[in-house]
Amino acid sequence: MTKPKLRIGLIGTGFMGKAHAFGFASAPRVFDLPYDLELVTVADVTEESASRAARAFGFARHTTNWRDITADQSIDLVSITAPNALHKVMSLEAIAAGKHVYCEKPLAPLAADALEMALAAEAAGVKTQVGFNYLCNPMFGLAREMIGAGELGEIRGYRGIHAEDYMVDAAGPYTFRHDPAGGGALADIGSHALATAEFLVGPITRVMGDCVTMIAERPDGKGGRKAIEVDDLGRAFLRFANGATGSIEGNWISTGRKMQHDFEIYGSKGALAFSQEHFNELHYFSTTDAKGRQGFRRIEASPDHAPYGLFCVAAGHQIGFNDLKAIEVAGYVNAIAGAPEPFNFRKGLRIQSLVESIQRSSAEGRWLDV
Amino acid sequence: MTKPKLRIGLIGTGFMGKAHAFGFASAPRVFDLPYDLELVTVADVTEESASRAARAFGFARHTTNWRDITADQSIDLVSITAPNALHKVMSLEAIAAGKHVYCEKPLAPLAADALEMALAAEAAGVKTQVGFNYLCNPMFGLAREMIGAGELGEIRGYRGIHAEDYMVDAAGPYTFRHDPAGGGALADIGSHALATAEFLVGPITRVMGDCVTMIAERPDGKGGRKAIEVDDLGRAFLRFANGATGSIEGNWISTGRKMQHDFEIYGSKGALAFSQEHFNELHYFSTTDAKGRQGFRRIEASPDHAPYGLFCVAAGHQIGFNDLKAIEVAGYVNAIAGAPEPFNFRKGLRIQSLVESIQRSSAEGRWLDV
Amino acid sequence: MTKPKLRIGLIGTGFMGKAHAFGFASAPRVFDLPYDLELVTVADVTEESASRAARAFGFARHTTNWRDITADQSIDLVSITAPNALHKVMSLEAIAAGKHVYCEKPLAPLAADALEMALAAEAAGVKTQVGFNYLCNPMFGLAREMIGAGELGEIRGYRGIHAEDYMVDAAGPYTFRHDPAGGGALADIGSHALATAEFLVGPITRVMGDCVTMIAERPDGKGGRKAIEVDDLGRAFLRFANGATGSIEGNWISTGRKMQHDFEIYGSKGALAFSQEHFNELHYFSTTDAKGRQGFRRIEASPDHAPYGLFCVAAGHQIGFNDLKAIEVAGYVNAIAGAPEPFNFRKGLRIQSLVESIQRSSAEGRWLDV
Amino acid sequence: MTKPKLRIGLIGTGFMGKAHAFGFASAPRVFDLPYDLELVTVADVTEESASRAARAFGFARHTTNWRDITADQSIDLVSITAPNALHKVMSLEAIAAGKHVYCEKPLAPLAADALEMALAAEAAGVKTQVGFNYLCNPMFGLAREMIGAGELGEIRGYRGIHAEDYMVDAAGPYTFRHDPAGGGALADIGSHALATAEFLVGPITRVMGDCVTMIAERPDGKGGRKAIEVDDLGRAFLRFANGATGSIEGNWISTGRKMQHDFEIYGSKGALAFSQEHFNELHYFSTTDAKGRQGFRRIEASPDHAPYGLFCVAAGHQIGFNDLKAIEVAGYVNAIAGAPEPFNFRKGLRIQSLVESIQRSSAEGRWLDV
Repeated sequence: MTKPKLRIGLIGTGFMGKAHAFGFASAPRVFDLPYDLELVTVADVTEESASRAARAFGFARHTTNWRDITADQSIDLVSITAPNALHKVMSLEAIAAGKHVYCEKPLAPLAADALEMALAAEAAGVKTQVGFNYLCNPMFGLAREMIGAGELGEIRGYRGIHAEDYMVDAAGPYTFRHDPAGGGALADIGSHALATAEFLVGPITRVMGDCVTMIAERPDGKGGRKAIEVDDLGRAFLRFANGATGSIEGNWISTGRKMQHDFEIYGSKGALAFSQEHFNELHYFSTTDAKGRQGFRRIEASPDHAPYGLFCVAAGHQIGFNDLKAIEVAGYVNAIAGAPEPFNFRKGLRIQSLVESIQRSSAEGRWLDV
Repeated sequence: MTKPKLRIGLIGTGFMGKAHAFGFASAPRVFDLPYDLELVTVADVTEESASRAARAFGFARHTTNWRDITADQSIDLVSITAPNALHKVMSLEAIAAGKHVYCEKPLAPLAADALEMALAAEAAGVKTQVGFNYLCNPMFGLAREMIGAGELGEIRGYRGIHAEDYMVDAAGPYTFRHDPAGGGALADIGSHALATAEFLVGPITRVMGDCVTMIAERPDGKGGRKAIEVDDLGRAFLRFANGATGSIEGNWISTGRKMQHDFEIYGSKGALAFSQEHFNELHYFSTTDAKGRQGFRRIEASPDHAPYGLFCVAAGHQIGFNDLKAIEVAGYVNAIAGAPEPFNFRKGLRIQSLVESIQRSSAEGRWLDV
Repeated sequence: MTKPKLRIGLIGTGFMGKAHAFGFASAPRVFDLPYDLELVTVADVTEESASRAARAFGFARHTTNWRDITADQSIDLVSITAPNALHKVMSLEAIAAGKHVYCEKPLAPLAADALEMALAAEAAGVKTQVGFNYLCNPMFGLAREMIGAGELGEIRGYRGIHAEDYMVDAAGPYTFRHDPAGGGALADIGSHALATAEFLVGPITRVMGDCVTMIAERPDGKGGRKAIEVDDLGRAFLRFANGATGSIEGNWISTGRKMQHDFEIYGSKGALAFSQEHFNELHYFSTTDAKGRQGFRRIEASPDHAPYGLFCVAAGHQIGFNDLKAIEVAGYVNAIAGAPEPFNFRKGLRIQSLVESIQRSSAEGRWLDV
Repeated sequence: MTKPKLRIGLIGTGFMGKAHAFGFASAPRVFDLPYDLELVTVADVTEESASRAARAFGFARHTTNWRDITADQSIDLVSITAPNALHKVMSLEAIAAGKHVYCEKPLAPLAADALEMALAAEAAGVKTQVGFNYLCNPMFGLAREMIGAGELGEIRGYRGIHAEDYMVDAAGPYTFRHDPAGGGALADIGSHALATAEFLVGPITRVMGDCVTMIAERPDGKGGRKAIEVDDLGRAFLRFANGATGSIEGNWISTGRKMQHDFEIYGSKGALAFSQEHFNELHYFSTTDAKGRQGFRRIEASPDHAPYGLFCVAAGHQIGFNDLKAIEVAGYVNAIAGAPEPFNFRKGLRIQSLVESIQRSSAEGRWLDV
């Protein structure tokens, strides 16, 4: 009855490092995982942050050299939450050492890099995971189940958005998110809108992009100013393989919006509307409801919507953002034990490719196949 | 103290004819108009419907020949709510007779016709009005006032939609709304989204369209089937003269949506969000609110938002769709007495031009100046 | 085919006078009424306001002496929108002259007066109407229809509220609404909550009241201060004849609330929730919906919910506050032609009695039968 | 820099046992606690459930005899999530052994028992905590901060409710929640509404109760039927020491409601409205906002509202139900290190007393001091 161990190393202890640590701590308490998770080593750039994280997150050891993790024979899984520019080198070294790799999004600044990473992982036969945790929401699972079961009929259209306002202040300085290699609102958060669109409706086949820079320059942090080359918002028209059409938008200057990862999907028999601002709900309209009694129905997350019931035994209590990470961890740990990978490097690459196609389409002012 | 008379003829007694009659009845009770409105003649195609309307709507006479109205020397203003294809001939005859013309949207199936109508009216010096009554909402006035006063700062972006679901059933028959000359969702209701966008943000300068037919054929009403050439939904990316960018969508197969004429507009200092589903509210976010106390504020229509107070002396009581028509009538009657025309034929033409540019952009797959 | 005339006199031209005029103007345009409405005389206290109202509202004559109306042999129906203290004398004189009487709420300051008025009307055989126009909402009709058809199963509980904030400012002066004879929040707006409760659930049999004065004194308008004897909010526990229990609250110091006339009603098979802030919607929960697909359903007013379709031919367009008055007028005019009276003086008396029972229950600190 | 250890024993591994385990796992990852938490022993009634929980929750040992925990010299803190009827004996034994006790609500079936427990804890000088985790919501902290800072002005009124529908089915069997000793909706969930009311507005001084049994008997699980003596819903009018008045309701047959722990509080300058259905938001109305710009403002939980920022570094991401438990654990662990106890046995007793006063008031049909 003793479970095998899955030995974990974590690189990075910032927001997402903490989220991974949270996932590793709570997933085993919520799910019946196929492994016992053993937290071996955590790495960060300073001794102080690494040692603090080790104790807070429950890791046995800490280091300021991330290669102590990728080179450690005893470690099975490497979590990478370091800056984006390092994802590739860390992943490739971990894969070369035969480790499973759990990497935060974006997988790499450019699709070409992501492709190299995906190919390496596939060649090595390791299991990979990219952090697109919004997809782990039980209400997304419900939506996909309903679509798959034909409850909406033939899917006709889709509208998706991921809007926040963390770049609304033109006096905010240039950051790594403004780096022309991989930066911009479409890449940073529009990528979530694209992941959700394909999760629900299936493959996108063509795109027409509209990427816009509204704040032309920002303080460079050294007393000067720096021109901004990346988009503050990126829109796209979409064609799907199943015949549906749609649109998405990624936007980081959408004043007042903190987490608007929303979608609406409509078919010949029904529709679904979702807002991340109330992410424990899914709104469902059915044309088969009785005349005079039709309307969007606010379905609250409940034990009927797995795996919600593992978190809360009653409807309406609600899971939180970090719980999505625990679901992601559980899915990935199950994949290591043989289940399908929920969102592997190949899928991460796909999102990067879509982003780049939309950017190129916008630059060229024409539709592109993807 | 006696007011001059404004003598009115009405052509058409269907939904919009009734709405005009409602506007003529209630506007004088709500507003202090510069004229006494005298309801002279109403026309419809059958004696029965014309005579019934005369009594119900309060017209002195009725006729089955609309030229009895355009030819009547005593009539000052002609309301046209007949089928779209007749708007042009009726308008031109009324204008030729020196009458003011109040025509339902779309002004004409094609922009070329609308241009002819606008030029005729301008040459004749008569006052015109096209029925875009959503713009008459006091909350739209509030939004425009706030934008104009700089309460949102520099306007950066816009999202608009007009979605309904009255064409969602593929078994529904071919109607005049599917006529390639002027039909389709973009023309029928996307036109409202365009009117609102320019009302709030100012002139659109470039468009990139995406018009889609999802239901390829429909019953022709004679036992056969007829191919559909018009769009079921039309999307567009937008550039505005003030530097902002945006998007709109018109959609008549958006299952579950009955009247989703919504917008969100965001600037450097604030944002507004509006849903026609709750059209007596405007949501306002200000970055100048105190830290930790910021959020979208649900402003309910109140006497602070003219002309709401003329309908209800207290906030929150709410005006209805037909009241928007009364506001439209009042604005037009004031224009006849010398005030600026709220939405004349020239503006109606503008909307037709935008629609056609978006359709052409979609067909050509490239951006177009407008 | 000519309809008989119903000749109307209106006393009072303030907010409710205007609402009555609006109702008389729009009801015939919306409904196929059994009478042609003829607007004969309007009365107000000054020549100027009376003459202005005559023209604006479309009355043939005006007067500053309301007895010109009650004494006019040609008038069939008297609308009374004068101050509450005059309702009784005006009604009794009109009834004595054999006229139908349409009186704004409250019918009279005290139930004893209201009883006298109801008895007089019944003895004279005239038709009466008290203005409780929230009940005319098509969504209320839908709710009652659903309850009656058993769609909620056995009704178990009810929560109602009517909260506004027009008395929230303690510096606001003493007004007639603070008059101990008939004043206070429970009487002024809690009465609406009581009317709705009985409209939906049926007769109330017992009450336990809690009436509270929070603002102990107000400026008397003459430089001094005046003690307030009436309640700023009145709550009640309720027992219904059908076995259900419930509660209501009337509150005029509910900061931020402009028109919160809300209810929730739950039964063994379903529930309804309503908010006047969005009064063209009714939220419906059914325990018979499929597992995992249950939720409150937002039903938007549509032509399925008569008489909404007479105002708007499509769902979601929404009626307004004044349209409720048009529905009330139509119901009353039909009653004059023989249909059941929607809300006659006897029902107005009932509301006054409930209010007084709750006030007395509160004062005595015990349950009372009603 | 090494922290002292706090050694923990957990009794019970059901829903709340899991929630405690979740809290012990996540609190140290989110907060910088004064102790390292060591999970020593978990107890449950069967070997299987105890051993499974040990591994899933991360406890070193397991047992089927809870006294192995209360008698273990090495254990500092005992978490009690066993059935209510056992709370007292377990707590008293743990207290007698000098341990800190963290007990789920209700503290005990009857206030007399709760008093004995509180006195024992106070005499022993141990720190106690009762599980009222809704109070741990950062938005509750914000609400209390705003009230304390006078942002609402003088507090005038309060409405609270805790409604769910888990007992709506009359065919559902008799359970321990129907036990006349401590059972019923008011005790089970109305207790939360009372805790929130006092948390925000301060001490309640008088109550008038209305406790109702709607489902008179239920299957006894042995083929027969059993009469129900406890309430299905309990309402109360309230008086507060600060002069405000209010009402609460606890209701477990409120069809369609899954977690409606809502409140509205209004003062002379502002109001707050909260719904647990969207518990990462607080709605705030201020009378000091500019004229024509007032409205309830939807404040989303953000790092401005501690300790939200320890869970998510950006606004709008949202915490979940289990995170409230982590906050509760952190508060309690800090109390063990010397900070004030957030909600100790004395406060748990207070809630029991309020519940019993309301029940007695209802039975006697009169107001009672509390």
